[in-house]
Amino acid sequence: MIVIMNPQATMREKSAVIAWAEDNGCTVHLSEGSERAVIGVIGNGRPLLREQAEMMAGVERVVPVLKPFKIASREFRAEDSSFPLGNHTVGGEELIIMAGPCSVESRSQIIETAHAVKEAGAHVLRGGAFKPRSSPYSFQGLGEEGLQYMAEAREQTGLPFVTEVMEPALVPLICEYADILQIGARNMQNYALLHAVGKSQHPVLLKRGMSSTIEEWLMCAEYVLSHGNTRVMMCERGIRTFETYTRNTFDINAIAVAKHLSHLPVIADPSHATGKWEYVAAASKAAIAAGADGLIIEVHPRPEEAMSDGPQSLKPEKFAKLVQEMKAIALAVGRKIEA
Amino acid sequence: MIVIMNPQATMREKSAVIAWAEDNGCTVHLSEGSERAVIGVIGNGRPLLREQAEMMAGVERVVPVLKPFKIASREFRAEDSSFPLGNHTVGGEELIIMAGPCSVESRSQIIETAHAVKEAGAHVLRGGAFKPRSSPYSFQGLGEEGLQYMAEAREQTGLPFVTEVMEPALVPLICEYADILQIGARNMQNYALLHAVGKSQHPVLLKRGMSSTIEEWLMCAEYVLSHGNTRVMMCERGIRTFETYTRNTFDINAIAVAKHLSHLPVIADPSHATGKWEYVAAASKAAIAAGADGLIIEVHPRPEEAMSDGPQSLKPEKFAKLVQEMKAIALAVGRKIEA
Amino acid sequence: MIVIMNPQATMREKSAVIAWAEDNGCTVHLSEGSERAVIGVIGNGRPLLREQAEMMAGVERVVPVLKPFKIASREFRAEDSSFPLGNHTVGGEELIIMAGPCSVESRSQIIETAHAVKEAGAHVLRGGAFKPRSSPYSFQGLGEEGLQYMAEAREQTGLPFVTEVMEPALVPLICEYADILQIGARNMQNYALLHAVGKSQHPVLLKRGMSSTIEEWLMCAEYVLSHGNTRVMMCERGIRTFETYTRNTFDINAIAVAKHLSHLPVIADPSHATGKWEYVAAASKAAIAAGADGLIIEVHPRPEEAMSDGPQSLKPEKFAKLVQEMKAIALAVGRKIEA
Amino acid sequence: MIVIMNPQATMREKSAVIAWAEDNGCTVHLSEGSERAVIGVIGNGRPLLREQAEMMAGVERVVPVLKPFKIASREFRAEDSSFPLGNHTVGGEELIIMAGPCSVESRSQIIETAHAVKEAGAHVLRGGAFKPRSSPYSFQGLGEEGLQYMAEAREQTGLPFVTEVMEPALVPLICEYADILQIGARNMQNYALLHAVGKSQHPVLLKRGMSSTIEEWLMCAEYVLSHGNTRVMMCERGIRTFETYTRNTFDINAIAVAKHLSHLPVIADPSHATGKWEYVAAASKAAIAAGADGLIIEVHPRPEEAMSDGPQSLKPEKFAKLVQEMKAIALAVGRKIEA
Repeated sequence: MIVIMNPQATMREKSAVIAWAEDNGCTVHLSEGSERAVIGVIGNGRPLLREQAEMMAGVERVVPVLKPFKIASREFRAEDSSFPLGNHTVGGEELIIMAGPCSVESRSQIIETAHAVKEAGAHVLRGGAFKPRSSPYSFQGLGEEGLQYMAEAREQTGLPFVTEVMEPALVPLICEYADILQIGARNMQNYALLHAVGKSQHPVLLKRGMSSTIEEWLMCAEYVLSHGNTRVMMCERGIRTFETYTRNTFDINAIAVAKHLSHLPVIADPSHATGKWEYVAAASKAAIAAGADGLIIEVHPRPEEAMSDGPQSLKPEKFAKLVQEMKAIALAVGRKIEA
Repeated sequence: MIVIMNPQATMREKSAVIAWAEDNGCTVHLSEGSERAVIGVIGNGRPLLREQAEMMAGVERVVPVLKPFKIASREFRAEDSSFPLGNHTVGGEELIIMAGPCSVESRSQIIETAHAVKEAGAHVLRGGAFKPRSSPYSFQGLGEEGLQYMAEAREQTGLPFVTEVMEPALVPLICEYADILQIGARNMQNYALLHAVGKSQHPVLLKRGMSSTIEEWLMCAEYVLSHGNTRVMMCERGIRTFETYTRNTFDINAIAVAKHLSHLPVIADPSHATGKWEYVAAASKAAIAAGADGLIIEVHPRPEEAMSDGPQSLKPEKFAKLVQEMKAIALAVGRKIEA
Repeated sequence: MIVIMNPQATMREKSAVIAWAEDNGCTVHLSEGSERAVIGVIGNGRPLLREQAEMMAGVERVVPVLKPFKIASREFRAEDSSFPLGNHTVGGEELIIMAGPCSVESRSQIIETAHAVKEAGAHVLRGGAFKPRSSPYSFQGLGEEGLQYMAEAREQTGLPFVTEVMEPALVPLICEYADILQIGARNMQNYALLHAVGKSQHPVLLKRGMSSTIEEWLMCAEYVLSHGNTRVMMCERGIRTFETYTRNTFDINAIAVAKHLSHLPVIADPSHATGKWEYVAAASKAAIAAGADGLIIEVHPRPEEAMSDGPQSLKPEKFAKLVQEMKAIALAVGRKIEA
Repeated sequence: MIVIMNPQATMREKSAVIAWAEDNGCTVHLSEGSERAVIGVIGNGRPLLREQAEMMAGVERVVPVLKPFKIASREFRAEDSSFPLGNHTVGGEELIIMAGPCSVESRSQIIETAHAVKEAGAHVLRGGAFKPRSSPYSFQGLGEEGLQYMAEAREQTGLPFVTEVMEPALVPLICEYADILQIGARNMQNYALLHAVGKSQHPVLLKRGMSSTIEEWLMCAEYVLSHGNTRVMMCERGIRTFETYTRNTFDINAIAVAKHLSHLPVIADPSHATGKWEYVAAASKAAIAAGADGLIIEVHPRPEEAMSDGPQSLKPEKFAKLVQEMKAIALAVGRKIEA
């Protein structure tokens, strides 16, 4: 931690910072510039100290030296993390394609879609049973009934499935059915939920909050990892900016940055990142070119009848065509999409 | 709902939209411009329809006519909502001042602070017992012990207290102790939690999410209101923007806008909205001048030792001075801060 | 400047940074932590060095210690800058009210408005003769004819006037007529223009760019000040964020921050900061409460016929009422609005 | 244009809007819903009318139906625009690679770089002679001397060159030397400059402003196109958001959106879009996968000595490797990078 004093700081104030740091078991270096003094504080990374230093008289600002996440960092683990999802492996050479509707709407809809995305080349089925909706008057999902239909779809197709969990109390129920727990963007910093999925030891797909920094997102992974649950996938799904033509702004940089800072696999969600099916193909291909380890794509047999996210859902035939296009990009970057 | 067709839309596509709207029980008006056709759809406000319309062939975009929130709107209730908090009333002529530390750190700390803020003129005590922290390694609050200390502080000072609730399972426990339930910014769209506090019938302080639009914020109030819990206060606490000098950007416009669109009281949080105690006084006075119905301000007896949010906490004597300054502003806008 | 090395940095890399800094005439302190080394570099504030340090092998990041602006800073000049505008003084106890239409539309319109705002209590007339418009097909202003009408309005009312200058070549012409040169938000970083108005020695009203940080805004003031032109007013006019209900987000914090970092007067523009006349009064009062030194407000005799910015323009009678309300706020914060 | 009346609007107010629209030569449709009336106004696309309508009594908001840009739109020209740059063509099957240093620093530096990027596969040389710098104390470029060195580099390598123009008065000088005029992000809405480059009839590379919407960016292209200068390339270079780990957020969606809305070629600038050379390769490949027609990449023989933008500049050997990687992606999306 580096403490930058303001130009008017007195010798007494500087001494107080130094004494405080040493009292906390740290080593201190003082550099006196012509305008400002700078105090380097080494050792004892407790985050509490930063805020306390900021409050001391004569202090202008404090610059942390260490990153706040530990287990999630490349420094903790240099090589990429990888782990199995069904018969495939995420985080290695293979790209994982997850696909399915935003919401499970009926038994026939999810089963029809599961077969369609399997045939097109997907490795994991997605579908929401408990839905976060901005209006209390909108369709809120089928609940456990939806989970049962997804389990049946898995039985028929062999595809493992991912579904969102919205509250700690539902984690045990959803773990009974689902293969992967999704934390939605609105719940990225729902810490009670992060603790619950951490304890569950189930694989987790952690969506980035719509205005969360990459560092905050990795800190949320740290919550899950701190329970010894190492099977965490980061999911970039677009951030909120001033641009309103698209539903979100796809932060393509975040894919490479997250992989640089962390060993965890990174999945891209081009459906939410664009919000319009017309742009999903371009965003999907860009994500692979940028280094993503997989994609999660909304597919609906009849988007114009979807009960949520219809405008950003692909029809099965468009999805099948996109998988073929993605295979070419994958090869161009030394990856592969397996059948 | 207004459906704007794209310039290449065929007569068949326009007819399909019209037929679909009529099948859904709506009345339709078709306007043919020189470049585009526009179809007005009247009646049946189900939100589902908008997304379906967006998916129909030939449709360029859909513009909603009605606001998505109902009970929260001025159209539902023209006059300001007001209700008692302790011996005072929020939403009327009086301004309500809530003050206290970010976290309850010890019995003596909260009791000392409660007496100090009471003496300075506060009407409600604030303090966190369950704390959302960006790091799993940071202090997470004293839990129920913290609630007990706050209850004791209330007994000694007569101040009702507000504290954050982070998960649905804790709502009953917190309702046993607290007078007002705070929904934090990170949990604004934690719908399970909104349902739980809605059902509780306890007064609610609903913080705006850091990247939530005013409309989304009012939709979250609607979740609480839809359970018949009408004692909801909106809390503007700053939004996230590109500016990093302050912790957040205080959206002062949002105060007047929320009061224009809704009848609910609006409280401002100048501590989070600035993140630096030096700017809390300016922001507090601005909030009152802009029409806020109250303030929630972080006060700590020794900010340099605070376990969270020290840099944005006022010392009791600075807070006492600020209350006096705020009284002058309140008078200038026809409001008052009662003893 | 502080150079933070990455954890894998070799002794050779650290030595290279130290040697490079010393070769550039700086003094160096090396602190070796358990995870990272930190090198403090003192002296020689050339901004070039920062980027070069960032490029050296083994360097993780570089933290500047000094602020990039000099003449604009409080450290350069501790007391508030103030200077006369007509018979009034900006930057002192008095608040300066500037008012008038977005665009000069006709001789009668500007003269009628000048009399109305004068009578209501304004000290400076505003009006655009050369207009930046997002569409090349929109009204672009009356040009020199507009300047002549404003000069005539000044003659009749005694009000000095401010008008926007959009390109360096027009600075001499506009200086012939206008009392204050406005740099618009879109041109904040038009450096050729900043040099030209700096050289002109005319008072300058420098609007903040819609996505400019406070530091960048002060750096643009530094461009003007570096020519010895000290009569610069900063103007906060709202920033662009994700919120679209208002035209811009009024960054009320920026008023207090700019006054903390700089000695220059700060003017608020509540018309652009809200974009809707309904919210102009709340924003104006908030700005004064937050410490602004003046306001610039759009007033039009018949907003519904305005050729630009009608929706955010006040009618003269509403403006007159607002001036009275602002007087009460000014008194409450120890300032005054003189007749 | 659609005028949405507020729920309290009287019959008199509705009639006034209708009468006003008809007086302006428009056709009108009135739809009376249960809560609100909606008035469709057809014909006469003058932008002035929208603001006037917003000001009329009883009007809640106005929704434009037509896009504000005309010549830039796909509706004006359905097929992609393409035009020659040296021996290559932008906007067709070929991808155009522009490369070179941020600033021309010396004769030897630009000539060395020009040879290096030519050999690596670039088609156009980039380099700044007049530089926009956030500090008045930073290196501002070599001016005309820099243009002369670039012309010499062109003579030796055959590469046409692009350079930024910062003020209208310099357009003739720069046109004498340069093959392509670059409008920088800070000057995107410098309308005097847009008029000047429009009149010049030189090819233009129009960078997107850092907080400009896609629509505003296309409106600026419209300024240039309105002078009959059809050789305009759009350049996405990242936007400003809350994320600070990267210099900007690369809006990869904007590439596909701009190509959907407009026929103009779109170039990506991965150097500014990331701000760190480590991420330039990922961003470049993503841009091609998303449909960009070319790239502009900063390359410097010794980035650690660069006078600007060193941290985001590639060394020639890294650039050469990247060109090879990009060729593979180009093939995967049916494009090519010619020698």
